[in-house]
Amino acid sequence: MNKSMVRYLLAKLLIIEAGLLFIPLIVAFIYHEPMKVITSITGTIGLCLLIGLAGNAVKPKNLHIYTKEGLLIVALVWVMWSFFGALPFVFAGQIPSIIDAFFEVSSGFTTTGATILPDVSVLSPSLMFWRSFTHLIGGMGVLVFALAIMANNKNAHLEVMRAEVPGPVFGKLVSKLKDTAQLLYIIYLVMFAVFTLILFFEGMPFYDSLIIAMGTAGTGGFTVYNDGLAPYHSSLINYTVAIGMLAFGVNFNLYYLLLIRKFKAFFGDEELRAYLLIVLSATVMIVLNIGHLYSSLAQTIEYSFFEVSSIITTTGFGLLDMSKWPLFSQFVLLLLMFIGGSAGSTAGGFKVARAVIVSKIARTQALSTLYPNRLFAVHVNGQVLDKKTQHSILKYLTIYLLIFLAVTFCLTLDTDTFMTAFSGAASTFNNIGPMLGTTDTFAIYSPFNKFLLSIAMIAGRLEIYPMLLLFLPKTWSKL
Amino acid sequence: MNKSMVRYLLAKLLIIEAGLLFIPLIVAFIYHEPMKVITSITGTIGLCLLIGLAGNAVKPKNLHIYTKEGLLIVALVWVMWSFFGALPFVFAGQIPSIIDAFFEVSSGFTTTGATILPDVSVLSPSLMFWRSFTHLIGGMGVLVFALAIMANNKNAHLEVMRAEVPGPVFGKLVSKLKDTAQLLYIIYLVMFAVFTLILFFEGMPFYDSLIIAMGTAGTGGFTVYNDGLAPYHSSLINYTVAIGMLAFGVNFNLYYLLLIRKFKAFFGDEELRAYLLIVLSATVMIVLNIGHLYSSLAQTIEYSFFEVSSIITTTGFGLLDMSKWPLFSQFVLLLLMFIGGSAGSTAGGFKVARAVIVSKIARTQALSTLYPNRLFAVHVNGQVLDKKTQHSILKYLTIYLLIFLAVTFCLTLDTDTFMTAFSGAASTFNNIGPMLGTTDTFAIYSPFNKFLLSIAMIAGRLEIYPMLLLFLPKTWSKL
Repeated sequence: MNKSMVRYLLAKLLIIEAGLLFIPLIVAFIYHEPMKVITSITGTIGLCLLIGLAGNAVKPKNLHIYTKEGLLIVALVWVMWSFFGALPFVFAGQIPSIIDAFFEVSSGFTTTGATILPDVSVLSPSLMFWRSFTHLIGGMGVLVFALAIMANNKNAHLEVMRAEVPGPVFGKLVSKLKDTAQLLYIIYLVMFAVFTLILFFEGMPFYDSLIIAMGTAGTGGFTVYNDGLAPYHSSLINYTVAIGMLAFGVNFNLYYLLLIRKFKAFFGDEELRAYLLIVLSATVMIVLNIGHLYSSLAQTIEYSFFEVSSIITTTGFGLLDMSKWPLFSQFVLLLLMFIGGSAGSTAGGFKVARAVIVSKIARTQALSTLYPNRLFAVHVNGQVLDKKTQHSILKYLTIYLLIFLAVTFCLTLDTDTFMTAFSGAASTFNNIGPMLGTTDTFAIYSPFNKFLLSIAMIAGRLEIYPMLLLFLPKTWSKL
Repeated sequence: MNKSMVRYLLAKLLIIEAGLLFIPLIVAFIYHEPMKVITSITGTIGLCLLIGLAGNAVKPKNLHIYTKEGLLIVALVWVMWSFFGALPFVFAGQIPSIIDAFFEVSSGFTTTGATILPDVSVLSPSLMFWRSFTHLIGGMGVLVFALAIMANNKNAHLEVMRAEVPGPVFGKLVSKLKDTAQLLYIIYLVMFAVFTLILFFEGMPFYDSLIIAMGTAGTGGFTVYNDGLAPYHSSLINYTVAIGMLAFGVNFNLYYLLLIRKFKAFFGDEELRAYLLIVLSATVMIVLNIGHLYSSLAQTIEYSFFEVSSIITTTGFGLLDMSKWPLFSQFVLLLLMFIGGSAGSTAGGFKVARAVIVSKIARTQALSTLYPNRLFAVHVNGQVLDKKTQHSILKYLTIYLLIFLAVTFCLTLDTDTFMTAFSGAASTFNNIGPMLGTTDTFAIYSPFNKFLLSIAMIAGRLEIYPMLLLFLPKTWSKL
């Protein structure tokens, strides 16, 4: 374990966070916010710089790092950024408890959008902006983002990248890693900018457009009001956001295919097809199930499509009180929570690609039991999926389920409604945000469970493995 | 597909069912039951004999059958026995709907013990006896039971056996298959007889002792009264039944080890140790959680231990209103529903052995991701588990989960409480019986869902694969 290098890189990343905090500081000045808020932000910047520069003072002799260091840095940076990112809320007294603030900011960076705030109006414009800005940063992964700015040795990039990029298949379309990171980052920011402008031209205040666009781009879900998008009373905005969320839930490698005009490969992608098919069928099922609740079919379709898009992309924007929906529709959404968005997108969850593969494995297994003398192969995008990859996806599913059950287990201590505990665990671990079957926020949970859920959000975002390192005694004994 | 042989064997099995129906007929005479009940039983016997003898009239030329025929016979015999076994209830008017009666009898044969009867006192003694007698028959598997009586070609046995015996490892302790079946069957019936006598000497009426012992031996759960064992008001009986259920949830191969005095192998068995450890820890957790609900610690321990034993062995005897328990305790029971009893026992569920292996695979996978250069093996009872077996257990888990989710999905149409739908699916698919979080019976479900759940109970009992054949169009086109 090259501990000097871990220290050195983390310190560098803390300096980057100090830099990012200048954005909400500017917002605070624009809105002429009270001195308390401004000092809380500048104080945090100072603290980050102090620790960051101290840790960065001595350059390590050995710059070489391996998988283990890569995974550890990734896991630690999310915890570190969430912790320091939480300080302005505590210092400004807007979220007095550090556990609550840590939850809120991990929820931001992991693009979950789960909140412990029953009333978001306690946040001043600058800190609300910071809260949503963490979605934008978290969106493509703290590290992919950081890497695109930061110059460092190639080896480190590779290992860090492997841990960071969501999904089972990353795609080797762009050969050089740093170029990939930069390209994805440009596509992402351009899409974000365009989306902000669309919302603005559709009549949303500019501040709100930015907040909603950051929530959409990162598939996060933090908004300006307690009831999400409801206050804008606009079907146009609802449809725009629903389609926007879907767009950010698509594998970004596919956008690269569009850019180089490989349309056939784009539309032929199995994950994309499955993703759109799931969205369509879930919407139809919910429309049929909730028809009696709303006055018109148009409204039923709008609400169903919005919620399906919001949940499968793991965004979780609020719009209406889903706890009034029949159990069937809530269960459909619950299934979507587990499927999640596409691999290589900003969305969380198990990922459509994995879900497709798992269902193909199940089908093949059933057939081969019934026809023991015939051979069946699992194909993805026309290629045979080897046994080793199949096995590793099934093992990932197993670990994913065991952690999910463990989190649910702890949540059942704080509520008496199974749907609340179950969807609370599903919603955080898959980085979605809202719970189903209740209008409560995550404020109902004990400090222990809030901390546990913060860790679960980070674990979900990083697809588990890097976080396991933090719980291994050996990691700490050797440091 | 040797369709004549399938027809021939099924016909033989139907004649056996006619023979089994003489037992409730005797009970009907003992209790001087009305003519309507007696004719309903004799009528069913006549029908079974008629169809059975007709199908058995022409002996097939080719006696050879393969896996596919074996699986198909196993799947069909459970459906067939449940259907014909349901007729007396319909004819006697005690359960007028055939769907309801089919549900009740599949629940009996699969040793689930789930009921659609809000009030069991509508059943006359003979038909209540038949309902519980199906537990005793189902206990060791309709086919293992049938095989022990019926003489037939060796090949057929082997294939049928493979589909029938629950659990991933059957154990090759006794070399000859028919001997194994007979030995297990003797151990089973001796244990059943001893257990009946113990209950009788503890003050239970003899009829009740038989019913409860049949429910315990088959890990079924049907009782004499609506509230299960509560009317006996006896801690002694509660503890006896709790320990009895645990005993029938142990791998029967281990009892053979006891018989041949291999005590070390018995107590060293990893599944047995895990099973007892799970029972102990679940009991402790529930005792700590429900302490405030009961007047004394003794009662709390008695109730907790009873319910843990009842659920993990997939028996599901009633005793108290668990819907008043806090969510945490209910969730612990829900987890036990999925774990189930030991492989090679009369219990259902995923099986402790598989759960142990799955958690070991998860642990190994986590470690090998963190230490990519080291090799980790999965050991069970001191032996290395090969990759192929690991992979097939994970594939079984996947199929198991997908079917469970599909069943839950359908149940959410009929209730608005997630716990009811979720535990309803878990309880039937794992062959347990009661739902959690509600005092309702399965009467709340639509006829479609009752039929679906009957099939789910049989699928769960047969560990899925044989039932898949019934849903494959090819099975029917080739017949």
